[in-house]
Amino acid sequence: MAFARVAIIGLGLIGSSIARAIKERLPQVTVTGHDASAEVRGIAGELGLCDTIAGDPVATVADADLVILAVPVGRMADAAVAIGPGLKPAAIISDVGSSKAGVADALAKALPDHVVIPAHPVAGTENSGPAAGFSTLFEGRWCIVTPAAGAPEDAVTALIGFWQALGAKVDIMGAAHHDMVLAVTSHLPHLIAYTIVGTASELEEVTESEVIKYSAGGFRDFTRIAASDPVMWRDVFLANKDAVLATLQRFNEDLTVLQQAIRRGDADKLEDWFTRTRAIRRSIIEQGQDDAAPDFGRKH
Amino acid sequence: MAFARVAIIGLGLIGSSIARAIKERLPQVTVTGHDASAEVRGIAGELGLCDTIAGDPVATVADADLVILAVPVGRMADAAVAIGPGLKPAAIISDVGSSKAGVADALAKALPDHVVIPAHPVAGTENSGPAAGFSTLFEGRWCIVTPAAGAPEDAVTALIGFWQALGAKVDIMGAAHHDMVLAVTSHLPHLIAYTIVGTASELEEVTESEVIKYSAGGFRDFTRIAASDPVMWRDVFLANKDAVLATLQRFNEDLTVLQQAIRRGDADKLEDWFTRTRAIRRSIIEQGQDDAAPDFGRKH
Repeated sequence: MAFARVAIIGLGLIGSSIARAIKERLPQVTVTGHDASAEVRGIAGELGLCDTIAGDPVATVADADLVILAVPVGRMADAAVAIGPGLKPAAIISDVGSSKAGVADALAKALPDHVVIPAHPVAGTENSGPAAGFSTLFEGRWCIVTPAAGAPEDAVTALIGFWQALGAKVDIMGAAHHDMVLAVTSHLPHLIAYTIVGTASELEEVTESEVIKYSAGGFRDFTRIAASDPVMWRDVFLANKDAVLATLQRFNEDLTVLQQAIRRGDADKLEDWFTRTRAIRRSIIEQGQDDAAPDFGRKH
Repeated sequence: MAFARVAIIGLGLIGSSIARAIKERLPQVTVTGHDASAEVRGIAGELGLCDTIAGDPVATVADADLVILAVPVGRMADAAVAIGPGLKPAAIISDVGSSKAGVADALAKALPDHVVIPAHPVAGTENSGPAAGFSTLFEGRWCIVTPAAGAPEDAVTALIGFWQALGAKVDIMGAAHHDMVLAVTSHLPHLIAYTIVGTASELEEVTESEVIKYSAGGFRDFTRIAASDPVMWRDVFLANKDAVLATLQRFNEDLTVLQQAIRRGDADKLEDWFTRTRAIRRSIIEQGQDDAAPDFGRKH
């Protein structure tokens, strides 16, 4: 099963990158696009991201073999309801949301008569909007597909083949496990980064301009992910509340342990901890999940 | 006052980068080097970092106009005592430590008859050792000089000129204020990164290999600074204990506020917070303190 026609609902960073990757890697596929924002549709049109871009979601999905919802997870249900009347019976519906259990439920409820196979490409940048996308965003990155029990095997296989064609590596797991894995690897880091950037900007003792000026000491790494799309991340934290709060509790315990070690002057505990974390970095680089160049390869 | 002879005590990332930058930008200056580790001295010798490298700190500083201590802050006092007998009376002693008030006290006590002017180049990478250094490390970065009240003006001017010659921009501030500024911009981010990387590697629900595999979702940004030198950072947290614990308390307050917003489903509070932090990132990029390329310019 190959897709002749793909519809993308939501033309931000991820949606527009999918459109670009299809143009480049699957030129035989017809891509239609829709975004709720007329401004975004206008920019996407100027960029030539899709074969057609429509203001009407129903028209956008007409005849589509695959529809990908690339909207914030809090808007998935509404987006699914809006496309419902235009879907052909055999269409496969998927998404790119960063949390999966809640989205899977919402899509299944909104489209009870269609094949829904949730997915999450673990890729992105801190920038947002249709102009921020690029065709190589998914190359070498993981896409996690979370089919419900009983999902048609040929549809799952087709969706996997689609993501592989865009350059991604694909894994399959249950939605609940996905949400716990991402809570640790993505949601908690974002929450921590958002927190510390907020904290630093509101201290009485240190001005915001000092924080900005001396950010090369470590702080600037946190600002990158704390610059990610506010609406998208608001929705992720609300949709994956339980897993986020559970991992946050574990983080708080560990932070308290290190806080106590500093207060007590427990040098050995600090050095042991810091030596252990270094090994994790090495594994990430060995597995090709990050750039080994010092300082991320920033120019000096 | 220009320096004809500079001695560097400690040939790790920072010390070796100073040596390289001098070779490249101040070729008329003679550089002598020492490291307590014979292995490090051997590597530095093979790399040709200094004109001479000695196992004896006293011999290393003989005739030096400027001596830079580039050792972990916990070793500054011992390093200062060790060079004492070799210093010529007019020598200026400086350092590169990431905390300043404690180091300034320790150096003043160890070398009461010499001019000591503490400094901190806010630059580095996650890598350690003499092979990790490079000559452009300080280019466009800030170096904070924290002279004590009554420090000789010509010596301060000479040290500023030295760092400018290596490509750095120089600021002057008091040691205590430096320590608060760096607690926010560097020490707290490192502590948080060390914590979360430790937390993620010890969860029961998610394996370490899953954490590594899906780290592109945000986690890998934290692993970079959590790979920094364990001994250096152990010493920084102990030396700047009060400021670190004070900023950590503020961070904890803010984290509790966001935690509560997630638990209560307070979408507006989350979106407002995340919108505010995005502006900080923009300022950092506008001021040239980070790369504007998406995802730090990593290859895709």
